Amino acid sequence: MKKIAVLGTGMVGNTIGTKLIELGYTVMMGSRSANNEKAQAWVAAVGEKASAGTFEDAAKFGEIIFNCTKGEASLEAIRMAGIENFTGKTVIDIANPLDFSKGMPPSLIPELSNTNSLGEEIQKLIPDGNVVKTLNIVNCEVMVDAKRSGGDPTMFLCGNKADAKEEVKTILQQFSWSDIIDLGDITTARGTEMLLPIWLRTWFATGNGYFAFKIVR
Amino acid sequence: MKKIAVLGTGMVGNTIGTKLIELGYTVMMGSRSANNEKAQAWVAAVGEKASAGTFEDAAKFGEIIFNCTKGEASLEAIRMAGIENFTGKTVIDIANPLDFSKGMPPSLIPELSNTNSLGEEIQKLIPDGNVVKTLNIVNCEVMVDAKRSGGDPTMFLCGNKADAKEEVKTILQQFSWSDIIDLGDITTARGTEMLLPIWLRTWFATGNGYFAFKIVR
Repeated sequence: MKKIAVLGTGMVGNTIGTKLIELGYTVMMGSRSANNEKAQAWVAAVGEKASAGTFEDAAKFGEIIFNCTKGEASLEAIRMAGIENFTGKTVIDIANPLDFSKGMPPSLIPELSNTNSLGEEIQKLIPDGNVVKTLNIVNCEVMVDAKRSGGDPTMFLCGNKADAKEEVKTILQQFSWSDIIDLGDITTARGTEMLLPIWLRTWFATGNGYFAFKIVR
Repeated sequence: MKKIAVLGTGMVGNTIGTKLIELGYTVMMGSRSANNEKAQAWVAAVGEKASAGTFEDAAKFGEIIFNCTKGEASLEAIRMAGIENFTGKTVIDIANPLDFSKGMPPSLIPELSNTNSLGEEIQKLIPDGNVVKTLNIVNCEVMVDAKRSGGDPTMFLCGNKADAKEEVKTILQQFSWSDIIDLGDITTARGTEMLLPIWLRTWFATGNGYFAFKIVR
C-alpha cells in the first residue's frame, strides 16, 4: 500500500488520517510546524503507522497526498510543502475556497469561484502533480463512510489524469462510496466547489450535517 | 383554482404552461409582444383554457405568476409586466442567472451570484410580491414530473413568505415532487442557483439531462 501524506491537522485531516490508518495505510500528517500539538495528539491516538512533520516532510513522505488544509490557506501550504514534492503524485484536494470575510454563511472566494476554482489553482501551482478534486461536498465523517448519510449517495471526481482518478476511486470505494461520477478535467471542480452554498443552507434548514447528494438518474 | 400567468415562451414556459393546463388551471402566457408566434402556437396546441398576451396582460391576469424568462432578461421582463401587478401574488421564479458571455459551459452572472442571487433581485424589484425560488435545478420535463428522473428526488423552496411557499408546495406536489425542503428566506436562492454549474457538468459527463438531486439523509 502506498504511503500517504495528509496536509492539515483540523477535523478533516484528522478524520481522513484516522480512517486511512484503520485501512492499513502508513500516514504522515503535515502542518506548518514540525511539533504541531494537534498532529502530535493524533499520532499518539492512532498508533505506530502514524507520524507527523512539516508540510514539506509530509509531502516528501507521501506517495499520495491529501490536501485537507483550509481553502484560503491551501496554496500557501502547498508552496511551503515544496512544489517539486508533488511531481508524479496523486493529490487529492478536499479543500473549499470559503470566504468568511462577508459574514455567515460563508460565500466563495470570488477569484476562486464561478470562472475559476481552488482545484484549478492548485493544479496550476503543481503542474507535475495530478490533482483530483473530490470529497469536498460532504462533512468529514461522511467523507470516510458514505453510508453514514443513510443511503447510497454520489461522489464526483474532477481531474486531468485518468490513472490518478482511478487511484482515487479505489480509495473512495474503501470509504464505502459506490456511486462515483467522473465529471472530467479539473475545471469541473468549479461545479463541485459551488455545491458548498447549498450544502451550508441544507445543513442550516435541516439541522443535519450528515447528508450527502445523490444524482437520481 | 387560481388563474396562472407564465412569463416566457421558451421550452420552460411551454412545458410548465402545458402541465398546468393538464392539471386544470387557466393559464395566460406572457411575452414581449401581444402576438408572439410561439405563444400563439402554444395556445393553439393546448386548448381553450390557454391564452396569450404581453407580459403586462399576463401579470394582470395571473393570481400566481411563474417567471420562466431567461435569467439575464428576467428583471426587464418583470419591469415590463408592471411592478404593481405582482402585489400580494405568489411569484414562482424558475430562472437562472446564466452568463453565456464567457463561453461554454455558462458561468453565473457575477453580480447575481455568490453574495447575491437573481431570486433576491426579483424580490427587491417587486417588494409587495412573494417570490419563491424553486424548480430551477432540473430540466423542464423533470420540473413538471419529478418521477421522470427515475426516483424520488429533492426540491428546494426559498422565499420570505410561509404561505406563498405553502401554495408553491401544493403545485410541486401536483408535479409529483414529494421530498421538498424549505431552505428559508429568499437569500437561500444563492444556494440553489449555484447548483447550475454542477448540473451542467453532470449533464455533460453522463449524457443524461433527466437527472435530479436528492439530499440523502
